[in-house]
Amino acid sequence: MARTEISTLGEFGLIKHLTRQIELKQPSSLKGVGDDAAVMKFGNKRVLMTTDLLLEGIHFNLEYVPLKHLGYKAVAVNLSDIYAMNGTPTQITVSLGISARFSLEDIEELYAGMRLACETYHVDLVGGDTSASMTGLTISITCLGAADEKDIVYRNGAKVNDLICVTGNLGTAYMGLQLLERERIVAKGKPATGDAIPAFEGREYLLERQLKPEPRRDIIEQLRKLDIHPTAMMDISDGLSSEIKHICHQSNVGCAIYEDKIPIDFKAAEVAEEMNLNIVTCALNGGEDYELLFTCDLKDYEKLLTLDDVYLVGHITKPEYGTLLIGRNGEELELQAQGWQAFNQQA
Amino acid sequence: MARTEISTLGEFGLIKHLTRQIELKQPSSLKGVGDDAAVMKFGNKRVLMTTDLLLEGIHFNLEYVPLKHLGYKAVAVNLSDIYAMNGTPTQITVSLGISARFSLEDIEELYAGMRLACETYHVDLVGGDTSASMTGLTISITCLGAADEKDIVYRNGAKVNDLICVTGNLGTAYMGLQLLERERIVAKGKPATGDAIPAFEGREYLLERQLKPEPRRDIIEQLRKLDIHPTAMMDISDGLSSEIKHICHQSNVGCAIYEDKIPIDFKAAEVAEEMNLNIVTCALNGGEDYELLFTCDLKDYEKLLTLDDVYLVGHITKPEYGTLLIGRNGEELELQAQGWQAFNQQA
Repeated sequence: MARTEISTLGEFGLIKHLTRQIELKQPSSLKGVGDDAAVMKFGNKRVLMTTDLLLEGIHFNLEYVPLKHLGYKAVAVNLSDIYAMNGTPTQITVSLGISARFSLEDIEELYAGMRLACETYHVDLVGGDTSASMTGLTISITCLGAADEKDIVYRNGAKVNDLICVTGNLGTAYMGLQLLERERIVAKGKPATGDAIPAFEGREYLLERQLKPEPRRDIIEQLRKLDIHPTAMMDISDGLSSEIKHICHQSNVGCAIYEDKIPIDFKAAEVAEEMNLNIVTCALNGGEDYELLFTCDLKDYEKLLTLDDVYLVGHITKPEYGTLLIGRNGEELELQAQGWQAFNQQA
Repeated sequence: MARTEISTLGEFGLIKHLTRQIELKQPSSLKGVGDDAAVMKFGNKRVLMTTDLLLEGIHFNLEYVPLKHLGYKAVAVNLSDIYAMNGTPTQITVSLGISARFSLEDIEELYAGMRLACETYHVDLVGGDTSASMTGLTISITCLGAADEKDIVYRNGAKVNDLICVTGNLGTAYMGLQLLERERIVAKGKPATGDAIPAFEGREYLLERQLKPEPRRDIIEQLRKLDIHPTAMMDISDGLSSEIKHICHQSNVGCAIYEDKIPIDFKAAEVAEEMNLNIVTCALNGGEDYELLFTCDLKDYEKLLTLDDVYLVGHITKPEYGTLLIGRNGEELELQAQGWQAFNQQA
């Protein structure tokens, strides 16, 4: 039998390949694979559903990720997907695979973080599955959300001339990860004298962005208050390049993103320089920011300017223009979706 | 810091411990942890949600489980939980962690099995997550279902004098597993001559019960047709002893199960004898039968007799009588819930 390495497809290629033959047949299934969350219709309500699988050694490294933060983040990334549909997260289920390395106290720490995220975002933990594992820690979380039909924002609604907005800043979580990785390697080379205090002073924000991301409920609430209805939206988990290309592909449009409009945290820029990294590349391709990317009709321009922590980074174009990054000197570059390709890292 | 081994609590103890502080706050959360599925209220509809995590080396052994069967079973066990609430499964999400050992063709096989189960039971695959894994295969499936409020059957509704029913036969999946395990060990000791054909002739049914269980949609349909509304119900995944004790505990009642009424497949009994195992012990404690256990009001007695593949095995008693197994000679034994304790196996 033929053997095709999965790394030749990458994550998106694999999902596309596996789900190509799937037809939705239940009348309650409105939207399946291909957006931040699936959309179901139960009675007069829309129900959103998203899921994330986190595996030790792939998605997190317990050498520098505290279990409580991990629990918080594992919940947060699911909530982010529901907010990215303009929905309200309501329930989660949590499945854990736990190796003998972990004590009850460890799992209590993990749960404390999950509970904190649930309390902060008013989400109920309603079920799950818990099992031994041969190796390491496995966390699988599924989140349900509620929304009215008219409120749901998909990835496929962007129109030519729409404005492209992002929230917060980008590349910061990636720089936080670089800091943590660097310290891990430095700490390994040192004798355990107890005085190897990591050099994180003044850079706590970067670590927090990596270790304890907050889903942008605040943005969703602002948009609702101002009666702004994005034409397309998703959360930025794999980097701006990858995500805007998803929106453009699904909306059958092109885009122009202006390099100098991309919001960058100055501490992140400082660390990038120190590490000889290009901060714009990190902002375009670094993962795990969990900010929102959305497009809006031009008529909302004035309102958008009044929003807190929302930045206009470009506009939607006709599909034939492609997905472009406009550099500081006006040069045009095709955006590359490197994204966060777990399968390629593995090769 | 103290270190408590998780194996000292077992799976149920761990879940109980971790979820003891959880309060449901969302108005849409009707029932959280503690039944086959969580129950939510969205608009005028009830939505059920259940999830299962399957880990290689813990829940399945790919030395004898074909990937297609594994995919089918992974879906089937989730559907079984929704049927056990008297609901109709509607959507699933599938998350996979895949190590480099697996080729695209392998994952296609797995998906083919999942798709077959979805088609058979009219369920849509609407989303998921796919990632590399450091070691082995991880499968996490979450299933949604729909139900009317009046139809949902919980575990806590059994009343004194209710009849206790089980479907199909019990212990058979466990005997199938024993056959597979025996052949695996035999095959390991033999040189790879290619003529080591496993001695499964005439016992295919046992293997099928282990490898490709069918959730009992047919029973749920029969119950509806005859307008029988069980007072309590759950699926038998950890053995009859463990499950009836759950129902008794949650309903605050006792039970008497008659040993000679427990449905046993004669081939399973034959294999048990061959292996010096007590088939009744296997039926009481062997896992993965995915049959239904339910209790019914006495008034339904006549109707129950007309049901296909449903067996009366005992009745509900006052709580002070305990949970009893009545032996063939009338002797009374307290039921032991050994169940399938993944954490203890690991120790």
